[in-house]
Amino acid sequence: MRILGIDPGTAIMGYGIVDYTGNRFVPRDYGCIRSAAGVPLHLRLRKLFHQLNDLLKKYEPNCLAIEELFFNRNSKTVLAVGQARGIVLLAAAEAEIDVYEYTPLQVKQAVVGLGRAEKKQVQYMIRVILNLPETPRPDDVADALAVAVCHANNSSGWGALV
Amino acid sequence: MRILGIDPGTAIMGYGIVDYTGNRFVPRDYGCIRSAAGVPLHLRLRKLFHQLNDLLKKYEPNCLAIEELFFNRNSKTVLAVGQARGIVLLAAAEAEIDVYEYTPLQVKQAVVGLGRAEKKQVQYMIRVILNLPETPRPDDVADALAVAVCHANNSSGWGALV
Repeated sequence: MRILGIDPGTAIMGYGIVDYTGNRFVPRDYGCIRSAAGVPLHLRLRKLFHQLNDLLKKYEPNCLAIEELFFNRNSKTVLAVGQARGIVLLAAAEAEIDVYEYTPLQVKQAVVGLGRAEKKQVQYMIRVILNLPETPRPDDVADALAVAVCHANNSSGWGALV
Repeated sequence: MRILGIDPGTAIMGYGIVDYTGNRFVPRDYGCIRSAAGVPLHLRLRKLFHQLNDLLKKYEPNCLAIEELFFNRNSKTVLAVGQARGIVLLAAAEAEIDVYEYTPLQVKQAVVGLGRAEKKQVQYMIRVILNLPETPRPDDVADALAVAVCHANNSSGWGALV
């Protein structure tokens, strides 16, 4: 199974493509798509959409995993993430793959075995689980890989279809 | 000038296409795009995107006008509107038209001449200004027409490019 994990955002969108076969993880690609702040928002969203489409075409993942929004944030942040998230879901629909959503708690539980884990622990465990030479930067990339790993660990379990 | 006004939402997305030439308004089309609640979200967003693309192709508007989100709402609503809004902005970018954003206050001011106007007054004035046989229903349609009228009245003025 090949999973595309996404951490959505307008300025920085983290992505991680992970193969999971027979309890073994192989990271295929990870990084982030950036869009410049000075550009009108609709053009920034278009750039994200096209680059996501390129990833979907190149790697042909079987599904997309994304973290549920942590709602204890201000409305402007929620709106910005929501807009980027809409683009991600559309790209998955156009590629005809399913989308699975996990809470931050579920992701931490799956990666560290502890729902209340610190960000640093998640990043450390992602590096260990995926056997990476160093911790992926920025945080958005580690978060994208984490939700992909979470889906692998729970693909027969409690992943909620968006 | 032909303006596409949009009131974004996942369940119901209101739209209104208005021509504005020499201080005269001619409504071309208005209505709403609906998506069923039982369908996975990414497929609902795809439906909205395709139907918006159809409208853009059919009517070839010069620009798109959209209301700024009123932030005094709960985060779940903001997220849902944000996701739909991302789709709208992407459709405008793909059609290579500009997007203009107005606050609820600006829309009311433009349509009724009063920033604190009631929803019913806005609906009444939209019917009068556009010479419609009856008040457009549901509210989302009237709101979409209102933001289009607002942009017409302010196309040389204070419309903020998204």
